[in-house]
Amino acid sequence: MKALVYDGPGRRKLADRPKPSVKLPTDAVLRMSRTTLCGTDLHILNGDVPSCRPGTVLGHEGVGVVDTAGSSVSSFKRGDRVLISCISACGHCTACRKGMYSHCATGGWMLGNTIDGTQAEYVRIPHADTSLYLLPPDCDEEAMVMLSDILPTGYECGVRNGRVGVGSTVAIVGAGPVGLAALLTASLHCPAQIIVVDVDDNRLGVAQRFGASAMVNSSDDGAAARIMDLTGGRGVDTAIEAVGIPATFALCQDIVGAGGTIANVGVHGAKVDLHLERLWSHNVTITTGLVDTGSIPLLLRTVESKRIDAHQFVTHRFTLEDIDKAYATFATAATTKALKVMIET
Amino acid sequence: MKALVYDGPGRRKLADRPKPSVKLPTDAVLRMSRTTLCGTDLHILNGDVPSCRPGTVLGHEGVGVVDTAGSSVSSFKRGDRVLISCISACGHCTACRKGMYSHCATGGWMLGNTIDGTQAEYVRIPHADTSLYLLPPDCDEEAMVMLSDILPTGYECGVRNGRVGVGSTVAIVGAGPVGLAALLTASLHCPAQIIVVDVDDNRLGVAQRFGASAMVNSSDDGAAARIMDLTGGRGVDTAIEAVGIPATFALCQDIVGAGGTIANVGVHGAKVDLHLERLWSHNVTITTGLVDTGSIPLLLRTVESKRIDAHQFVTHRFTLEDIDKAYATFATAATTKALKVMIET
Amino acid sequence: MKALVYDGPGRRKLADRPKPSVKLPTDAVLRMSRTTLCGTDLHILNGDVPSCRPGTVLGHEGVGVVDTAGSSVSSFKRGDRVLISCISACGHCTACRKGMYSHCATGGWMLGNTIDGTQAEYVRIPHADTSLYLLPPDCDEEAMVMLSDILPTGYECGVRNGRVGVGSTVAIVGAGPVGLAALLTASLHCPAQIIVVDVDDNRLGVAQRFGASAMVNSSDDGAAARIMDLTGGRGVDTAIEAVGIPATFALCQDIVGAGGTIANVGVHGAKVDLHLERLWSHNVTITTGLVDTGSIPLLLRTVESKRIDAHQFVTHRFTLEDIDKAYATFATAATTKALKVMIET
Amino acid sequence: MKALVYDGPGRRKLADRPKPSVKLPTDAVLRMSRTTLCGTDLHILNGDVPSCRPGTVLGHEGVGVVDTAGSSVSSFKRGDRVLISCISACGHCTACRKGMYSHCATGGWMLGNTIDGTQAEYVRIPHADTSLYLLPPDCDEEAMVMLSDILPTGYECGVRNGRVGVGSTVAIVGAGPVGLAALLTASLHCPAQIIVVDVDDNRLGVAQRFGASAMVNSSDDGAAARIMDLTGGRGVDTAIEAVGIPATFALCQDIVGAGGTIANVGVHGAKVDLHLERLWSHNVTITTGLVDTGSIPLLLRTVESKRIDAHQFVTHRFTLEDIDKAYATFATAATTKALKVMIET
Repeated sequence: MKALVYDGPGRRKLADRPKPSVKLPTDAVLRMSRTTLCGTDLHILNGDVPSCRPGTVLGHEGVGVVDTAGSSVSSFKRGDRVLISCISACGHCTACRKGMYSHCATGGWMLGNTIDGTQAEYVRIPHADTSLYLLPPDCDEEAMVMLSDILPTGYECGVRNGRVGVGSTVAIVGAGPVGLAALLTASLHCPAQIIVVDVDDNRLGVAQRFGASAMVNSSDDGAAARIMDLTGGRGVDTAIEAVGIPATFALCQDIVGAGGTIANVGVHGAKVDLHLERLWSHNVTITTGLVDTGSIPLLLRTVESKRIDAHQFVTHRFTLEDIDKAYATFATAATTKALKVMIET
Repeated sequence: MKALVYDGPGRRKLADRPKPSVKLPTDAVLRMSRTTLCGTDLHILNGDVPSCRPGTVLGHEGVGVVDTAGSSVSSFKRGDRVLISCISACGHCTACRKGMYSHCATGGWMLGNTIDGTQAEYVRIPHADTSLYLLPPDCDEEAMVMLSDILPTGYECGVRNGRVGVGSTVAIVGAGPVGLAALLTASLHCPAQIIVVDVDDNRLGVAQRFGASAMVNSSDDGAAARIMDLTGGRGVDTAIEAVGIPATFALCQDIVGAGGTIANVGVHGAKVDLHLERLWSHNVTITTGLVDTGSIPLLLRTVESKRIDAHQFVTHRFTLEDIDKAYATFATAATTKALKVMIET
Repeated sequence: MKALVYDGPGRRKLADRPKPSVKLPTDAVLRMSRTTLCGTDLHILNGDVPSCRPGTVLGHEGVGVVDTAGSSVSSFKRGDRVLISCISACGHCTACRKGMYSHCATGGWMLGNTIDGTQAEYVRIPHADTSLYLLPPDCDEEAMVMLSDILPTGYECGVRNGRVGVGSTVAIVGAGPVGLAALLTASLHCPAQIIVVDVDDNRLGVAQRFGASAMVNSSDDGAAARIMDLTGGRGVDTAIEAVGIPATFALCQDIVGAGGTIANVGVHGAKVDLHLERLWSHNVTITTGLVDTGSIPLLLRTVESKRIDAHQFVTHRFTLEDIDKAYATFATAATTKALKVMIET
Repeated sequence: MKALVYDGPGRRKLADRPKPSVKLPTDAVLRMSRTTLCGTDLHILNGDVPSCRPGTVLGHEGVGVVDTAGSSVSSFKRGDRVLISCISACGHCTACRKGMYSHCATGGWMLGNTIDGTQAEYVRIPHADTSLYLLPPDCDEEAMVMLSDILPTGYECGVRNGRVGVGSTVAIVGAGPVGLAALLTASLHCPAQIIVVDVDDNRLGVAQRFGASAMVNSSDDGAAARIMDLTGGRGVDTAIEAVGIPATFALCQDIVGAGGTIANVGVHGAKVDLHLERLWSHNVTITTGLVDTGSIPLLLRTVESKRIDAHQFVTHRFTLEDIDKAYATFATAATTKALKVMIET
């Protein structure tokens, strides 16, 4: 089969690979229908993710059809159309029993990282019963692909950890795909105000179309002051960090109100300053976390009932043959204005 | 009346001051019975708390008897014996309605800070209806003084913010009075393990008497490793920081398990490093906060029903006349082994 | 001043009454701008509410302007335009500190019940600081009147107690004003499905306009079966009882799914059957409650940010002079199709 | 092998049965070490549980050693000593993902009900990975048997559903084994008061030994009044119903305070009266539920750390050969004073 293989820092190739097969009774093998690219794939290609060894098929998102199910898989059978969670979870270890699937003792983020992933014609899914979701018959497959990672990440790590509530005020720092996913899913809790912050006016324009109530360009030093103004000087109830650098985490500390929450979603490569000399008495909460994807069933119903329009993330479409162009488009999003690029496999 | 007055950095004096009187209909004036000293009083004397101007009577803890109640005070009358909350709260501003009394628009930590405090024969209490608590007839007054600040601080900022739960594992870094208050009140949630960490073996001995299940001396570099061992390599569910310096906050980051909480109680004078490059995916929560004292009624019932022994904090006793000796004893706790010093007024 | 006075079972009169004045330092007297009628007013007129003695001015909803503020009222001054909570709350008793204002030791539902109410030119508001809310300058006053009782009741007793969640399924039994308030505010939590049940097709039509995803007429015996069909046989996550009779409470028991909640909002005059022989193992929660109105600030922001359109409740308008016509219209809602009737005072 | 078989209403027999074997890859077969009897076994023998057909081996509690593990069982291997949950759970259906194992689509209460149970030399456990718990090496096996059902039932259905909190007041109506389990586990939350109610003075004496702060005999009509007295007229924060008849559920309604919770644990055979004409405005919550046993790991740590003494439930000991005597002893607990009878298999 064809598969996009990580070939060491800076290198990827569309290669021929043997079709995967069931290794454990809990596995399923899927014929992929659609997959997509994630910022993390670019991190891997940069050589920033040591857990991913050269030779690995990339990709951790997508929908497919069950080709073979292991002997103990009881929820799915050949021919079922399913959504893939980016997180594989056994369902019975200590972490899984708490719903903390991202820290599953024999799972977690494996696909396209420690095992072969979804940018291929076929993929093997470990712990299939707890890592796949049956799709409704008439669903929009492209919208569904957004449920593998980006929407649960924005929702769980940003909105839920950030305790976004009805009538509250929210700032989302970073209007990339995950920040926009936080924006879309924050609206499910009907905050009074969602301020989106970015350095790119195009992205801020997208945020406005996605429902932001105010946009702040943070290219200069005045962003914190403008956000404080927008909140009557109180600061926000929730600041969602969706970039992953010290400057944006610092901004979150400047704008969070007393009693508020900073929900970190960004992937950080370096330590940051935490201003406890100021925040120790400020009654704030800071959260971090990998997505667990436990919210997929809920978000799936939400997309189905048209509460959020997941389709609008898809800006470009490619075939697996053309995945190289897909990577080129996605890697230069500032100019191509790409959000998510869809790969038909 | 006699009162202990802050006289500028490094100076305090027992002075004669006019007896306070009701200024607003919501005030009450108390005849003080007992008060105590807090680490914060030492911070003020060091000149570290700019909100406290020279000339202020120190002290924010204690019990007393109502001498005069303002015209709109409805819960208390002359002669009532009451516990003083270290936090004054109006009960109706936005913060108070959320129970966040520490950020009351016209209250917060005022006593012995922005207005005259309790180390005196009389004190004026603003917002008396929401800032005093009627004492049961036969209560142990010395134990009650521990409810003004130290027990609610340990409980709210450490135990509750830290989500200490039945069967969980807890580390308390710092075995000073507030760390010990966190220890005593953590036991109300029956964790499976409470590890107390300090550099002073005497303090660790006290922690053992207060109910710690393990003690770790952090004078050398091995503390984190020993705590990881004690938790089977998983790290703790809750790390309570009760010191307020970068090194102890760093230790908390080293020992918190996936899904765990770092509850900051310490008063920090400088920023700290937050290792998001490691913690971003670790599903941790960090909390900060001043005490709100909303837990006083609950803790009062707990002390009354003998669930915790608050009396054991009291190591030394003085009269107001001798408050200088009290300060000397408290300021040299490493040698005097003082925890809380009781001042009869 | 003119006031609508309860004159014993079956009798009301528009009478001349002395203008009220401040009795306690915590009181405020308002010049009423707008008020409305509530189903409870009809209950009083039926003689069903013994706590309301003949001679009482009716009404517990409305907006007004502060005429006089007691000496300890600190949040409001003469001339402020304010929203009246139907619940008066001291803010400092045990119940108030828990946010359970409805059970305030010296408050609760007093207006138009145990003291004179709002269907008058002036009204005295006890505990003004905790029972009034400043209105934004340019707000829609008619929409604001819906925040005195009906919207917080639907939200707190129905939606919040019922734990309506993103992606969940909700049935609201009873499409009167309070049921519709539950419907509007349920949408703030973006459930996947809101099924509204009533015996009146006109009311079901209104429910559809207010955003119901399905309507079920319960005139015949098939309502439970149709709701089970609509939920794929699982039953609803939340059943909101907004009628107050045994038959509707029974229906809720028939349609609640395992793990679900029945949130009672209806005012019941008789006991009901609880089928514990079936429900004991069904993991259900049943809640009851008077509104506390603690959600008013949040709902006010929600109305201000256009998340819900409170204005659409207002179907008829009258002056205080014509309040008799207002009562006639409201009491015959089945024919007049009245939801809320607005009284300009 | 020997097994205690239900032989139709009123009949049981110790019979020879074939040793069970693994049927599905997710099964495990255990060699039983110890089991016990439950009130539910008596219900089955009375013919009150139609889901249990004649011919079924009874019993749903116990500890054993893994004899054979199915091919997909990954957490346990031959020779592991394990605790059996009374609830079998797949870990991946909709109910299981919410932690509502009692409503597992292919599990729930199966053992000794819809499939052969634990009062035998061997037992087949479905969904072994999510239905068994590894025992610590040096644990007290008899104490562990209490974790199969009785302790999680008291804790989850009584204490947790009842929201027992630090400093709160609790009444437990019914001092049978499950009521006593609620009592023991309620103490993990350090309420200020635990009042136990029963008609049997012997059981009340046991309750006192188990830590009740007050005992009330409800043989006469004065129980409610005495409980109201004990709570200063406020009623209890939590009333745990651990009997299962209308009279005890009625008592709970009489004694629950405003804002309180009635947590039903009792197995009811008939509907009860719910006094909504009184409770509609009382802000109460009523919960029902089968045990999910999700709390087993937490309770296991709690027993291990000596926070509760589970051993004290065991009043009598028998071998499997003598299980008839065990049933006779348990069925006449009023005279034999039996709590839990231990069966060595």
